Amino acid sequence: MSANITTSEAIVSLSDPSGVSPKHCAVWLAERNNFLIISHRRPDGDTLGSAAALAQGLRETGKTAFVLFNPEVTPRYAPFVGDYWAPDDYKPENIIAVDTASVDLFTDNAGVYKNSVSLGIDHHTSNSLYAGVNCIDAGRAACGEIIFDILMALSGAVSSETAERLYIALSTDTGCFSFGNTTANTLSVAARLIEYGAPNRVLNKMLFRTKTRGRIKIEGMLASGLEFHYDGKVAITAITREMMEAAGACEDDMDDIAVIAGSVKGVGIGITIREMSSANDCKVSVRTMLPYNAHAICLHFGGGGHKMAAGCTIEKPIDEVKTGLLEVLPDYLNLNS
Amino acid sequence: MSANITTSEAIVSLSDPSGVSPKHCAVWLAERNNFLIISHRRPDGDTLGSAAALAQGLRETGKTAFVLFNPEVTPRYAPFVGDYWAPDDYKPENIIAVDTASVDLFTDNAGVYKNSVSLGIDHHTSNSLYAGVNCIDAGRAACGEIIFDILMALSGAVSSETAERLYIALSTDTGCFSFGNTTANTLSVAARLIEYGAPNRVLNKMLFRTKTRGRIKIEGMLASGLEFHYDGKVAITAITREMMEAAGACEDDMDDIAVIAGSVKGVGIGITIREMSSANDCKVSVRTMLPYNAHAICLHFGGGGHKMAAGCTIEKPIDEVKTGLLEVLPDYLNLNS
Repeated sequence: MSANITTSEAIVSLSDPSGVSPKHCAVWLAERNNFLIISHRRPDGDTLGSAAALAQGLRETGKTAFVLFNPEVTPRYAPFVGDYWAPDDYKPENIIAVDTASVDLFTDNAGVYKNSVSLGIDHHTSNSLYAGVNCIDAGRAACGEIIFDILMALSGAVSSETAERLYIALSTDTGCFSFGNTTANTLSVAARLIEYGAPNRVLNKMLFRTKTRGRIKIEGMLASGLEFHYDGKVAITAITREMMEAAGACEDDMDDIAVIAGSVKGVGIGITIREMSSANDCKVSVRTMLPYNAHAICLHFGGGGHKMAAGCTIEKPIDEVKTGLLEVLPDYLNLNS
Repeated sequence: MSANITTSEAIVSLSDPSGVSPKHCAVWLAERNNFLIISHRRPDGDTLGSAAALAQGLRETGKTAFVLFNPEVTPRYAPFVGDYWAPDDYKPENIIAVDTASVDLFTDNAGVYKNSVSLGIDHHTSNSLYAGVNCIDAGRAACGEIIFDILMALSGAVSSETAERLYIALSTDTGCFSFGNTTANTLSVAARLIEYGAPNRVLNKMLFRTKTRGRIKIEGMLASGLEFHYDGKVAITAITREMMEAAGACEDDMDDIAVIAGSVKGVGIGITIREMSSANDCKVSVRTMLPYNAHAICLHFGGGGHKMAAGCTIEKPIDEVKTGLLEVLPDYLNLNS
């Protein structure tokens, strides 16, 4: 029942012949119907783009496929996934989770499916293999790259609608192909998506080259508030709810905001702390340059992610979060330990 | 002697069988030796990356090839082209200009070659076809894409050294593949360059994901100084020499700074005015969203470039430059004219 794939990273190479390859996934999907696709909490372009593309691709083969409504969807991505939201009375037969490393990342309305996920498709090293069948490749920059391989195996081509959604998945998870996770495969798949009709010019302008005035103000505040520690190797900055209000910035303005602290010359660990629903609810985003390990730092606080981009939630006020982080950071800066 | 290629844009499709294709270029190069390669004024990653990659690729086939020293090279690109600067006593037989639309863009020390360029390789619509043989494809985002095709035709592969320099050319001319000029071919070539050993992770971090404190400060100042005109369709901002000094910013910090004004939501024409050597020497950079035409606007002031990114120099103080621009902009905002 459970067929998983593992690599040197504890997870997961599709070159392992025992594993569930995209081709196997395609066969698995072809033999089934009535799918419900789950995306993760604080949804990004990869989880929503992957979910919508998979639903679209499945529909094009005559299947019934919906995406479970994600209550945290932002206006930026809503137009690309809105056509796929499952009606309330939908009775799925097969549950698929995409880009979701653990059932802890399920939205509340997905809780009922925590023990019945049939297929997990993901690219996170930290995937807990909670699904019946797991197709996981931690060597892919975006889950969308795996979805592309699955749909190509299923149909031999993708439509422009599917290509558009997969382009969103790939481009947003790689900072428009600029992050360290970008591989030759990422760019090669992106090239094919453009050939299949993904409107990269319009999407790039919207996703990467347009800033609201709120975003520009918040970026200015973040830059002013940058603090440097440990010989400039660590940069920390914080965003309070008050700052958000003063800048007229909303949640949709905050995408990828954590890269700023990580982008200062000489900085190996960039940390952005955001005050969320209350003063005791802080979201911490860590961006690192190798050899520093963002995932390890966030794991210490009960979070996780990728080596160079990870996050955690700490239920303390900003100052205490900062102090707590600065206390443990020497362990992660000392490369000999 | 002169074989040129033209498209619907007045220049230049390689699909025209009468034209000089990259394959023809490769034959042309194979039959000759002792090359000197010229890059353009205010050199960017495309002209320098293309020049260095072509020199490297030619050397790998046993040829003698050098790049003419570019006195305006910035520290960012110097390490990638430094090995190819021609010695003072070099006596070239064949002069090649890359990414250079006109001899007016030659540096002073290249002036002696204005009438003797044997081969022009370029992707600018505005190329004046000044060379004996012109290989120009305005459909390519970067001149480096054409150089890649030429070197592949010449040698069947590129080395990691060449791939690194071509990756710089492609990625810098497309804002790491986010500008509207990026095509499937751009991404496909970039994928192959990574396969050939281009260290995209290191290069992207250096070129796109690292900001000096000076750059961050200048960006903050630019954002604060943004003025909006014509119902928010036009954004103008200016950088004085005084601001540069206050921010501790240098020329190397200013790469691609013009995209900021063009990135505000709702803005169709983003204009950045920079005071250069004196208060009466302003460089104007225009970034547009289609259908607005940056090239046409700059042409009005004696400059030019691409449809969505162009520039000109106006020898007036910033305020007069601004007034002059605002006066003519209605002509370029009125889509019916």
